[in-house]
Order: sequence, then structure tokens, then C-alpha cells
Amino acid sequence: MEDIKGVDILRIKGDNISEEEDVVIIEYPFTIFLDDEEIITLLCSPKSLEYLTLGFLQSEGFINSTEDIVSLRIDDKKGFSYVYTKDKKTLSHKLHGKRTITSGCGKGTLFYNVIDSFKSKKVDSSISIKLKDIKVLVKDFNKSSELFLSTGGVHSCALCSSKKIIIFEEDIGRHNALDKVLGKALVENIELNDKILLTSGRVSSEILIKTAKRGIPVLVSRSAPTSLSVDMAKELNITLIGFARGEKMNIYSNFPSLIF
Amino acid sequence: MEDIKGVDILRIKGDNISEEEDVVIIEYPFTIFLDDEEIITLLCSPKSLEYLTLGFLQSEGFINSTEDIVSLRIDDKKGFSYVYTKDKKTLSHKLHGKRTITSGCGKGTLFYNVIDSFKSKKVDSSISIKLKDIKVLVKDFNKSSELFLSTGGVHSCALCSSKKIIIFEEDIGRHNALDKVLGKALVENIELNDKILLTSGRVSSEILIKTAKRGIPVLVSRSAPTSLSVDMAKELNITLIGFARGEKMNIYSNFPSLIF
Repeated sequence: MEDIKGVDILRIKGDNISEEEDVVIIEYPFTIFLDDEEIITLLCSPKSLEYLTLGFLQSEGFINSTEDIVSLRIDDKKGFSYVYTKDKKTLSHKLHGKRTITSGCGKGTLFYNVIDSFKSKKVDSSISIKLKDIKVLVKDFNKSSELFLSTGGVHSCALCSSKKIIIFEEDIGRHNALDKVLGKALVENIELNDKILLTSGRVSSEILIKTAKRGIPVLVSRSAPTSLSVDMAKELNITLIGFARGEKMNIYSNFPSLIF
Repeated sequence: MEDIKGVDILRIKGDNISEEEDVVIIEYPFTIFLDDEEIITLLCSPKSLEYLTLGFLQSEGFINSTEDIVSLRIDDKKGFSYVYTKDKKTLSHKLHGKRTITSGCGKGTLFYNVIDSFKSKKVDSSISIKLKDIKVLVKDFNKSSELFLSTGGVHSCALCSSKKIIIFEEDIGRHNALDKVLGKALVENIELNDKILLTSGRVSSEILIKTAKRGIPVLVSRSAPTSLSVDMAKELNITLIGFARGEKMNIYSNFPSLIF
């Protein structure tokens, strides 16, 4: 499916007014059914919907691996995703957990309490990355964001080795973009505890939590982190980098893992 | 309460690495109880919590006016808001509505279906605004965003007459910032159908819906709109303006209401 759409606009530049065709990003309602139970409707970009489904379900603790899944079917006309799992009982049980709705530019629900997440286990990784590698990755990352360049309306997320981008996804929501990346990593069975995550979006606690749950040791954002995400990053041994733009960046936590 | 916090960072500029103190935006879990029922936990900036509570409850259809409310108490140590209403039954009944979780940089839940919102009534307003007034408002708006300037981590939202900003709020979530503005407008009983909303954030369907529900005829964003928000704006007679920066802006819908 297309993820952009042409619209007629009036473009104003100073006193100059012109009628033009422009493109806007598609906002696509997408509902996930888990074992015939309606779990959520995400407003997303209509690409990589299988990855989004799996990444979301893993982020929220409904599945641990693709092994848990019997079948996954996307109906992209209707915007539905149907997932069937081996062990229905434990899964639907999770639904009764506490919800925390996010502030963040994200699809915005966590089926557990943010504060409890401090109990998440620390990220155990011996990775040491060079600053110059991160600068190169950030430059490649910015170049890769085509949808943003055409519409200004999306977030990008990438999973990287210290040398190159392995997975790149975009979505109108930064949570969706992250879940697409993590869903693809799940399908491709990629080892995560030596990888680096790049995101265009702000790092709020729920983004940090998704990262920590996968044991990813380094999270780099083009934007700002929140206080809670910085606290959690310190607590969970994650190197959190913000405002990564060109040659500049701020490192908020876990400095030792970096080689200068 | 403070909404920023000092943190020690490593600041990288090219080959220059310095240990500095920087500030990050506070991310504050805030739970709303309506008639002793836990409704939601928002991750927000800890200011204007009363306005956030009221704006959220009105946005989600739990209340129509302050008349519906018997008492509102904020416990900002715990991050709790306790609201009691006259007519508990109908309100708690609403809880069983459909939820749509958003893509947007927002707290992220709507207790109704996005698609149904096309049935929202059209905005009926005879307002006609001058482009030059909008340009002035946008410049004032950008100047006003102090938190963003210090932390890069917040969204701003403002309610304006054609001549000046009346209400200005900031939050880590663009939905929260909007709900704070709308909550304050509710408390101050401000007529909305001749006003202009400014937001720093992307305009997704749920932002458009909050605007339409209040009958606000003009929505101006510093960022991009989504396809669904443009469709809804046309459907609901809202003038939607995006990428409003300095002398530039794009007008996506309802052109006639503007005087050039």
C-alpha cells in the first residue's frame, strides 16, 4: 500500500500564494486481533504491518518469540491483523494488566505500569562502540529517511551494528516505527544485545522500556530524552544518546561503554 | 512542580568532548480517577494538572462542562487526580466504548472509534481570519515556547483570537498540551467557535477530532498533517494549516474562510 497521498494545497511564501499539489502521509487505522480478541487499534503507516503486529505483541508481553504464534494474517483492505497463538489462556490473561497511556509520539499504550519497569533486568552487554561509528550511523540514518523528506510527517527507526544499518522502518508514530524494527528483528531472529537503536523521535520512558526489554545496550535519538528515560537508562545499563545531529550529540548515561 | 531537571551529560561537538550539566524535561506519570474508577495514566509535564484532567475528560466525552463536576482534587505528590461527578452512571458507562490508540505524539487513547468521528458535526463558524494575523500569531507562538528552547523536549499549544494568544500550555505530549489548553478554556468558559488553535506538533486524526469537538474553526500546526486529518478537516469545515513557520505555511482545507 501507498504510504503517501497527493492533496491540493495553498502554499504561502511571504506574499506569494500558489495552488499546488503536495503530499501528506497516510494515517491508517490498523486493528490487531489476538486469538479473536480485539487488542488495539493503531494509527500507523500502512507498511510492514506484519512486523508492526509482532513487534507490538512482543513489546506488550503477549508473545516472547515467533514460536508462540500459530498463524498471522493481515487484511490490509480492512486494516485488520489476525494472530493466533498456541497458549491462549496466559495471553488473554495479560490483558487484565495495568495500562499506562503514554505522552509520547507513539501508539500509546503499555499493558504494564511504567514505574514497575524499573524492575526490568539490567541490560547485560559487553559492547563498546566508537563515537565516530555512531556519527557515521547517524548520518546514514538521516539520509535514509525518505518519507520524512517528502512529507515531514514520519518518524524513522533503525537497528544497527557498529558498522551499518541492518533494519530501517518508518511510521507516523515513533512507537510504531520502533515496533516494526523490533518485529522484523524477531522474524529474522537477530541477536540484539550487541546492537544499536537509532530513532528520530523523543525518548520517553516507554521507548526506553521497549529497548531495555530486548536487551539492546545503546539507544541514539535525534531528539530529546525525558527525565524518566534518563533515570531508567542509568538503572538498566543502557547508553542513552540524544540530539545526535551531524557531529554533535549528548550522552546521558552509561558513558564507560563508549570508546572515544 | 518543576518541569525540568538537571542532569550530567557528556557533550560531543566534533572531536570536543566535555562533561556538562544539562536540563531534561520531567516525565511525570499522572493517574486520573473518575468517581473512584481508574481511567488512565498519562505521562505528562507536571504543570496545569487540573486543566489536563478537565481537558482530557471533556475530550474523551466523560464530561461536557464544569457543571458535571462535583469535586476535583490533585495529589501532585502521588501524581493522582480525583474527580467526582454528578451523574456517575452515564459516565462510567462511557468506559465501555471502543478505544482507539493513537499513533500520535499524544497520550494516546480515544474512547471512541476514529472512523465514527466523521459523523462529528461540521464546525459552524463565520470567522474569517487574515493570513498576516496568522503569521503574527505563529511568530509570537514560537517565541513563547520556553520549555522547548531549554530542553527541546516539549510540545506547545495555544488558543488565540485573531489578534493575540489567550491561552498557552506546554507538555511532553502534544495531546496533553492541547487538553491543557482546552481544559483551561473550559474553566474560563471561553467561546471557542471564533478562535484559532496553534500547535507545535503533527496533526493526526485525534488532534483534529479534539479541535472539531470544541467547534474550533482554525487549526494551525508548525508540523505536518496526516491524510486522515486533512480528510476530516475538509469534512468538518475546519481550516487546517501546516508547516506554519515564519512567512511560510501550507493551507490544506477550507480555504474560503481566509482573507488574503
